[in-house]
Amino acid sequence: MKRDMKSLIAQMTLEEKAGLCSGLDFWHLKGIERLGIPSIMVTDGPHGLRKQAADADHLGLNESVPATCFPSAVSLASTWNRELTRQVGEALGQECQAENVAVLLGPGANIKRSPLCGRNFEYFSEDPYLSSQMAASHIRGVQSQGVGTSLKHFAANNQEHRRMSTDAVVDERTLREIYLASFEHAVRDAQPWTVMCAYNRLNGEYASEHEELLTGVLRDEWGFEGIVVSDWGAVNERVKALEAGLELEMPSSSGLGEQKIIAAVQNGTLAEAKLDQAVERLLNIIFKAVDEQRENAVYDQEAHHQLAKEVAMESMVLLKNEDRLLPLTKQGKIAVIGTLATKPRYQGGGSSHILPTKLDNVFEEIVQAAGGAEVFFAEGYPLEHDEIDAELMAKAKETAQNADVAVLFIGLPDRYESEGYDREHLSIPQNQIALIEAVASVQPNLVAVLSNGAPIEMPWLPKVKAVLEGYLGGQALGGAIASLLFGDANPSGKLAETFPMKLSDNPSYLNFPGDGDKVEYKEGIFVGYRYYDAKEIEPLFPFGHGLSYTEFSYRDMSISAKEIADSDTVKISVFVKNTGKTAGKEIVQLYVRDIQSSVTRPEKELKGFEKISLKPGEEKKVTFTLDKRSFAYYNVELKDWHVETGEFEILIGKSSREIVLRDTLLVRSGTAIKMKVSRNTLVGDLLADPHLSSTAKKLLDKVNETHPFAQMGDEGNMAEMLAAMMKYMPLRALVNFGGGAFTEEMMDEMIETLNAASSPSSRA
Amino acid sequence: MKRDMKSLIAQMTLEEKAGLCSGLDFWHLKGIERLGIPSIMVTDGPHGLRKQAADADHLGLNESVPATCFPSAVSLASTWNRELTRQVGEALGQECQAENVAVLLGPGANIKRSPLCGRNFEYFSEDPYLSSQMAASHIRGVQSQGVGTSLKHFAANNQEHRRMSTDAVVDERTLREIYLASFEHAVRDAQPWTVMCAYNRLNGEYASEHEELLTGVLRDEWGFEGIVVSDWGAVNERVKALEAGLELEMPSSSGLGEQKIIAAVQNGTLAEAKLDQAVERLLNIIFKAVDEQRENAVYDQEAHHQLAKEVAMESMVLLKNEDRLLPLTKQGKIAVIGTLATKPRYQGGGSSHILPTKLDNVFEEIVQAAGGAEVFFAEGYPLEHDEIDAELMAKAKETAQNADVAVLFIGLPDRYESEGYDREHLSIPQNQIALIEAVASVQPNLVAVLSNGAPIEMPWLPKVKAVLEGYLGGQALGGAIASLLFGDANPSGKLAETFPMKLSDNPSYLNFPGDGDKVEYKEGIFVGYRYYDAKEIEPLFPFGHGLSYTEFSYRDMSISAKEIADSDTVKISVFVKNTGKTAGKEIVQLYVRDIQSSVTRPEKELKGFEKISLKPGEEKKVTFTLDKRSFAYYNVELKDWHVETGEFEILIGKSSREIVLRDTLLVRSGTAIKMKVSRNTLVGDLLADPHLSSTAKKLLDKVNETHPFAQMGDEGNMAEMLAAMMKYMPLRALVNFGGGAFTEEMMDEMIETLNAASSPSSRA
Repeated sequence: MKRDMKSLIAQMTLEEKAGLCSGLDFWHLKGIERLGIPSIMVTDGPHGLRKQAADADHLGLNESVPATCFPSAVSLASTWNRELTRQVGEALGQECQAENVAVLLGPGANIKRSPLCGRNFEYFSEDPYLSSQMAASHIRGVQSQGVGTSLKHFAANNQEHRRMSTDAVVDERTLREIYLASFEHAVRDAQPWTVMCAYNRLNGEYASEHEELLTGVLRDEWGFEGIVVSDWGAVNERVKALEAGLELEMPSSSGLGEQKIIAAVQNGTLAEAKLDQAVERLLNIIFKAVDEQRENAVYDQEAHHQLAKEVAMESMVLLKNEDRLLPLTKQGKIAVIGTLATKPRYQGGGSSHILPTKLDNVFEEIVQAAGGAEVFFAEGYPLEHDEIDAELMAKAKETAQNADVAVLFIGLPDRYESEGYDREHLSIPQNQIALIEAVASVQPNLVAVLSNGAPIEMPWLPKVKAVLEGYLGGQALGGAIASLLFGDANPSGKLAETFPMKLSDNPSYLNFPGDGDKVEYKEGIFVGYRYYDAKEIEPLFPFGHGLSYTEFSYRDMSISAKEIADSDTVKISVFVKNTGKTAGKEIVQLYVRDIQSSVTRPEKELKGFEKISLKPGEEKKVTFTLDKRSFAYYNVELKDWHVETGEFEILIGKSSREIVLRDTLLVRSGTAIKMKVSRNTLVGDLLADPHLSSTAKKLLDKVNETHPFAQMGDEGNMAEMLAAMMKYMPLRALVNFGGGAFTEEMMDEMIETLNAASSPSSRA
Repeated sequence: MKRDMKSLIAQMTLEEKAGLCSGLDFWHLKGIERLGIPSIMVTDGPHGLRKQAADADHLGLNESVPATCFPSAVSLASTWNRELTRQVGEALGQECQAENVAVLLGPGANIKRSPLCGRNFEYFSEDPYLSSQMAASHIRGVQSQGVGTSLKHFAANNQEHRRMSTDAVVDERTLREIYLASFEHAVRDAQPWTVMCAYNRLNGEYASEHEELLTGVLRDEWGFEGIVVSDWGAVNERVKALEAGLELEMPSSSGLGEQKIIAAVQNGTLAEAKLDQAVERLLNIIFKAVDEQRENAVYDQEAHHQLAKEVAMESMVLLKNEDRLLPLTKQGKIAVIGTLATKPRYQGGGSSHILPTKLDNVFEEIVQAAGGAEVFFAEGYPLEHDEIDAELMAKAKETAQNADVAVLFIGLPDRYESEGYDREHLSIPQNQIALIEAVASVQPNLVAVLSNGAPIEMPWLPKVKAVLEGYLGGQALGGAIASLLFGDANPSGKLAETFPMKLSDNPSYLNFPGDGDKVEYKEGIFVGYRYYDAKEIEPLFPFGHGLSYTEFSYRDMSISAKEIADSDTVKISVFVKNTGKTAGKEIVQLYVRDIQSSVTRPEKELKGFEKISLKPGEEKKVTFTLDKRSFAYYNVELKDWHVETGEFEILIGKSSREIVLRDTLLVRSGTAIKMKVSRNTLVGDLLADPHLSSTAKKLLDKVNETHPFAQMGDEGNMAEMLAAMMKYMPLRALVNFGGGAFTEEMMDEMIETLNAASSPSSRA
């Protein structure tokens, strides 16, 4: 329905306008009854609905209405399945409609800078391309149902430690290539109704007051059309936030926020037009919600549970499978060990913590799926603390000893990871480690099934033959695990993050969580696999890793052009075949490597992925389209993405560390970079510049006729040193060392000639 | 002789004064005959005199008069022997007097940030304490002879790549704790006559124009009394440099520099008083040189050669000695293999490259020292290029096969490392690696003797039983090596730098040599062992490592006080005994570890070392004195060194990775840090502050009586999350979430109360 917002705003009082800019209560926006503006509801997400009926909080503390608990973002990302993620979004949207919720507060697209971040489970990946692709799919799904999303937490909210006060100091290139890139595609292509600003500061400015971020980047560059909402309690100075581009303060500030806005308009420090603009944007979203609201909407709880199971199955990652211990045969004796098998951990703690419509008991699902096998259970350890319970342990050992195979359910208890605080180490509880060792001493056929929201270290890895990373699998995790263990489903998840051997290997280690209220992102662009690659550090499991019960072979990579302009796109295709005996899905990964660059670049970067389903013997052609962005880095001088003319390598991999095909193409830059010659320009740079080298050579040869340098030695490493010296010599030093043979006037003249010769055109 | 400089200056014309501020030619300062101001000479160093008679250059290209070539700085540092280093300085000073040189251009105290820096051999260490101690000893030695030094290159000149244009971006704390600290002690305690500014820029400003550096830190803080001289050609804008505190431009600028100074004084942009001050400082140094000049000074070349040998023997580091292959017995057949045994590499390339008074032939020295052993020689590889010479290789293999033991002379050729350019990898030439493999295939008893100025990687290490790191041992290296190989001397050098397993392990790897003209020191304070320790990276050989032919045992560490104020000093003593059968020297290392700190600190830092000589069975007590600085970090808020009250661990080690004794003491801070409470102060910080916690608790308890937070859940991880939440909650968020129960006015009142309660006193 088309409305005349401007005339609506004209009818509003200053108080009403200012009032709209903060919440009515914890979960509702204000409405204005006399003008027909309703109060809409927003609700925590993003892997399920946390609609609170009574006592409200933003910490997952109080009860909410039952909703389907889908796998967490970490699990969604591990599916690498855009379509499935979209379906989850769709289902969430339906549940919102059924509960009369206008906006779901998610997804989260923050980069997993450190494995310690307590909220990593709510985020997708360490890679911005993968993260942004998954976020976009989630948003499209939810919004297809006429329900808004809130892409969060914008930006650089990569830790829980001092999250409301810490200042993330991030250099511009890193910010663009990693932390903002993780949001960029999702904003540009999926247009979330709202974007939620982060609690923290970014380069000195609260995200809630960061005009460059909320207006410059988000609206002006990326074309964001929705509203910016504060994270709950993130507003520092309300008026400054409004001016920066934050339309909605949440939750209710009990009148304080609007009082400040009103005062600012009245005393002239805030232009009323600015407030009107915010109100118009708010009204656009409010009425969008109104228009798309579906009366008497319902959803199919069982269908959603099935979808949750499907996602869980695709998300779990088979990390290790020695002797093809998995899938288990449906006969003999199976020991299921670990409290997590009966008290599963299936979602994270905090604002995303929801009340599921139902919850699989993992052990029972295994019993059901086990066919002719006998299944036994032992708790093994208490979940509430880390102490060893000798009795539980002894029983577990006995149970394992009497079986043909033991499946250990281990991982991180709720108290280990949550919104609100970060982990301090990567270990699972000591009582679980002791259990693994005890069981391993009597049972060689060990499978570990993990429940955790972020990487753990595994010094015990050699003791188990198979590891299934279950992550936080949602309410249907049990069925999913059972299906995967017995081969009723084939694992097809791959890691969206690197598992380091040890905590100190991780790139942010020396700068996490920062000193006082300052956290410097000194690892720069080298986040995740970009770091492990560049530093040649062997990870425990690399980004993109995941095994299958079948095998895939790759052949015949082809590139549609051996040379392109950076304004062109190029198609890369490859044939992938299931050469095993089981149907399965494969995630084909495409990485780009800049072979030579004038700036430091990662060894490779993910620029494409496709998940395909293949029957035994079946082969499919997978095609990727790359564009300028696929080859570009962010050039801080140009303030733009830039491709340097040169060869790029296209890598097709099963994981970031298992590259199976590679080929190169040439990309030509369409951007002119003109060299500005000054007295501090280096001789070597002049001689290397494609446009200046011939002129420079002529001029320098003339200088050399009389310059003392020309008289110097020229043998062996002397020559090498002299050459290096000249290469790094600024023009002004030719004067310093000229002994009068080369004067400042001669230098100035040379600079003038060179600047005249330096015409804009693309540079290698 | 006391002179009235002020009246002398009063007699000088503006032209004369300006003239004094730049060189007469390449190596001389200007004199003013009519006023009796002589022209003094300066000469490259620092491990020998490079006095050029004819064609002058600053690259080590043209001939210079013969002088004793002492081991390079890398070798001096490996002795860890202050007294010996002082003796070398003394000898250098004598040679300067004999050659009528007023100032020797050295030592270099730049930190070895990357093993790739082409000039590392001219610098002492990756550790600022060791570096500054050695530099001070060197300076004291030279200056004891009435000859000046030039402590260089000030500051942050840690690479050769684009050295005249690159901008070293270094955060303040890192600059203070690492890069400036390496100069600080040497300036404060040894007062070099001159300090040489670096070529590069530091945080945007050319070092030659960096007022904070040249005047603020150097003179005002450290009390430097000499003159600042430019590195040759380092002056960018002469007037700006003068104003920043650079008195002397070198070499001659052919009149340009003085013209600019004159013009600036004349047009009023430069105060003449500033020029007068520079001239007075110059005159002080010139006349100091004049007064201390010794007529007809001579030196004993043979005695200096013997000193060079002694230093070389103490500098070489026995890295590995499997099966106690070393020392060699003086019987049987010994194969000496490698061109470097007859064409030794004993000094680095560039401005420090000198003409030695004589030069040992390593092979011949071995023959002489071999007693009853037969010694054979084979070249093995060409030194001029990296290609394998099949004939040389075959001969080497044969020679090795027929011997009882083979000593391989390998390392970096001149063309691999030099002033002027950096290395790009850590490998020795491929033809040497091939030689090692070939020889190892026929001879298990392999000793490698290395000639190199900086760390190399050693993938071939398992193939050799012993490795003697010879570094760049000066003209008497041959005798030194022979003595060490046969046990006529006992190795006592230890590494002043970490040898990494591979290049990518090194801390600067991702940020060296930078992009374009910007190199960001993102590893921060984690340079050298500070990084390998913190990141738990196993080095090839750790900082401080070095073996001996005897053994040392440590016992009974004692600390003079279990608790001190940071204004006190404390004495640490330990008994060290030679428990082996050979006389030897041990380097006892003391490291300090801050057990808990509010800022990120290294695992440990070197704060003391002593080298002692012990006969078999002899025991000595070694005592160290620590002061505030030993425990402090640089606090950028205070702009001062600061000790946090708390426990510190004192570590006594044979190397940085072989700590043999440890104990703790408590240091109490004498510095008051008052907490400034604001609306963004965190609740947790208030409750943790020793002066505010009780007041804060009372006030917050009162808030809680009505605040909605107090009503929230309190079980299990909910409670944990709520606690974490409150800890990280700024006061203003108590308003945001207060639902009106806690107003801004109440908050402002609370802040006022707290700030009144926060009285200055020391904080933990």
